[in-house]
Amino acid sequence: MCSCAAAYDEAMTSQSSASPVGHAAMRSANLSLLLRHLHAHGGRSRATLSQETGLSKAAVTTLVGDLAERGLVQEGEVERRGRVGRPGTEVHLDPRHVAGLGLELNVDYLAVSLRDLGGTVRATTSVPMPGADGDHGRTYPLDPVLDLAAAQVRVMLAEAEAQGLWVAGITVAAPGPVDYEGAAVRFASNLGWEGVPLGEELEARLGPDHPPLALENDAKLSALAEAPRLARRGIHDLVYLTGDLGVGAGIIAGGRLVRGWSGFSGEVGHIGLDPAGVSCRCGRRGCWETLVGFETVLDVLADDDPARSPHLPMQERLRRIRELHEAGEERLAERFAALPEDLVRGAGVLVDVLNPQAIVLGGYFGAFADLLVQPVQEALDARLLDADGRVEVSGSTLGLDAAALGGAAVSLERVLDDPLLAPPLPTRA
Amino acid sequence: MCSCAAAYDEAMTSQSSASPVGHAAMRSANLSLLLRHLHAHGGRSRATLSQETGLSKAAVTTLVGDLAERGLVQEGEVERRGRVGRPGTEVHLDPRHVAGLGLELNVDYLAVSLRDLGGTVRATTSVPMPGADGDHGRTYPLDPVLDLAAAQVRVMLAEAEAQGLWVAGITVAAPGPVDYEGAAVRFASNLGWEGVPLGEELEARLGPDHPPLALENDAKLSALAEAPRLARRGIHDLVYLTGDLGVGAGIIAGGRLVRGWSGFSGEVGHIGLDPAGVSCRCGRRGCWETLVGFETVLDVLADDDPARSPHLPMQERLRRIRELHEAGEERLAERFAALPEDLVRGAGVLVDVLNPQAIVLGGYFGAFADLLVQPVQEALDARLLDADGRVEVSGSTLGLDAAALGGAAVSLERVLDDPLLAPPLPTRA
Repeated sequence: MCSCAAAYDEAMTSQSSASPVGHAAMRSANLSLLLRHLHAHGGRSRATLSQETGLSKAAVTTLVGDLAERGLVQEGEVERRGRVGRPGTEVHLDPRHVAGLGLELNVDYLAVSLRDLGGTVRATTSVPMPGADGDHGRTYPLDPVLDLAAAQVRVMLAEAEAQGLWVAGITVAAPGPVDYEGAAVRFASNLGWEGVPLGEELEARLGPDHPPLALENDAKLSALAEAPRLARRGIHDLVYLTGDLGVGAGIIAGGRLVRGWSGFSGEVGHIGLDPAGVSCRCGRRGCWETLVGFETVLDVLADDDPARSPHLPMQERLRRIRELHEAGEERLAERFAALPEDLVRGAGVLVDVLNPQAIVLGGYFGAFADLLVQPVQEALDARLLDADGRVEVSGSTLGLDAAALGGAAVSLERVLDDPLLAPPLPTRA
Repeated sequence: MCSCAAAYDEAMTSQSSASPVGHAAMRSANLSLLLRHLHAHGGRSRATLSQETGLSKAAVTTLVGDLAERGLVQEGEVERRGRVGRPGTEVHLDPRHVAGLGLELNVDYLAVSLRDLGGTVRATTSVPMPGADGDHGRTYPLDPVLDLAAAQVRVMLAEAEAQGLWVAGITVAAPGPVDYEGAAVRFASNLGWEGVPLGEELEARLGPDHPPLALENDAKLSALAEAPRLARRGIHDLVYLTGDLGVGAGIIAGGRLVRGWSGFSGEVGHIGLDPAGVSCRCGRRGCWETLVGFETVLDVLADDDPARSPHLPMQERLRRIRELHEAGEERLAERFAALPEDLVRGAGVLVDVLNPQAIVLGGYFGAFADLLVQPVQEALDARLLDADGRVEVSGSTLGLDAAALGGAAVSLERVLDDPLLAPPLPTRA
């Protein structure tokens, strides 16, 4: 019996958006199919590619030729699977010519990552975010931030050129919900920005000939950056939690990013967990952020502790907190002992609503994964209604660069979707 | 600039699952494309179909012929758009030959719906659920329930045959999470069932020659049943709330049903909203269900009020409550006055996590939509962080039949996906 009609959802609920399948579209779709297959499964012979994709051997040979012309695949070692038949040379992704770029704006730092098609990080930069201390906390003046961001991108584009890489796109990880129709960050409460036309402003600063620019929310990009590691183990439903001054979630359900209709999904910092709780800066009470935000850790430190300073790089502040904790600072020990329960109050809600298979702790939660993962896992296990609903808790493996790395990976998706975007390599006559 | 790379999510996160595109698959995909286009947009001429789908006129003519042979489309009136060129006859979905069947098991009733390809409900039945009052509340003995369910399905299959309808499939709306690998309802706390092999048991009772059977959770099917009405207005992100003894959510994000990795998404009745709240039967405190479940309404009625009786059909119980409320019963008035705020405490969490564009109130919430929708809408508007995040609240238009209707619609998806499943009509020699 068929216990699940897997394909019905989109069709049921969206306008008919399928495209007719003609011959030009067939070539493009099959190029993408082959490139994605190599991307997901690694190098293999033409014969294996033909078996696994169902394309004829002749078609595979032609298509691989097209991909090689654009520097997307290359011949590799002889394949050594089984012993029957003539051994074929393996076809691999070619990591030498195509890259994606990711830029993250954060309250604490501005990071750029350059990643090639093979997944190798070719260069990263991270600089403290320009900001000034004012009467109402720290402010982030728009122009200096954008100037610095554009400068960092230009540096990295030059770096790409020096390394012989064509950059498929630039994806900016914005610290708030993104306006997908326009080019704006709509609400970045922790920067004090609202409706900033981030895309347009950066494009104006980059000049005419830059790669296509896209915006995405930082938590969503971090989730996309962590997703392939979990997808390789068959996990396609996950929640990535950013832990910073605010708390956000990147949600992947059934292998797809959940954006929400206007890009506001995962704004979990303000879910109300206790009507009698602490007042939040949003005006409500008992928001999850008041229980687990980075400030709840900073608040137990001495007023003049350097870890409190937003002018220090985030890595240094975290290192300082780690040192204090290892030195047995008592209030810090109490805070980290109480944090798992507070984390589970919100994470439990996310589990009930979304039924993810994995929760990934990012940001400062990830930096203290050794203290948090096990107790959070145990507390979530204890509240299960059914063993099959178990969720696996882990710390982010990408550290504070997750969003920038996710941005670089998303930029590369343009080429995986449409390999013909990549320019043909100059012929070596 | 491209501010959104729409297609990257699935590709980023799941194994490569695309299929190569050959000529047989092309025919099937294009038949499905045409049928879905007519399903979504209504009848139109071959010329319009060609324009809108991008298929050649010759291909449209051949494909429409194939669909007509299977009783899926028919010729209709002359199209009257514009005045240029020869008027073409319109091609319509043919509602006369193909149907889907949905069966809902609920604590209160067992309902079956038969729906044709044109969307018309051809027959429905609803009978009280067989159950017995025991020491620990009501129990639902398995065999009588399954016997009655199979009997109702058989009656409806006979009805379909009498109406000349071929039934594409049967989808059972189960009152709990569903095991998609097997055929089990995994946890139906309100029926007291656990791991019941519902699919197998029903199949055994139906005998060998029944249409393919599928299971799905009731809240998810209700969401799918409501989705097309909203999709026609461009809304593809919604949450359907079931209001019964328990509270569940059916979630559609970006036009896709969110199932969760093990089918447990939307188990929102037990999200914890108040650590100092009322004890829940799940063992925790302050669960949303303790604030808004149907029992919170029943609890304000006199002990012997007939609306409390699970032996009465749900419609009658709701009618009785409506009468009491209209007669000015004071405690009921208070309950309905307080309910919106309690609804918004949980709905607000769902808005923060999922950013849906619409929330549909189903079950008893839907039956009292006139009392609930406006105050819930106002309270949700008041807590907005950004006007673009506004969510539209409405009552279900499908009433208590939503899940059975959703099941019937999902059964029809098999044919929309693969029109060649429908048997050719007997030639009328």
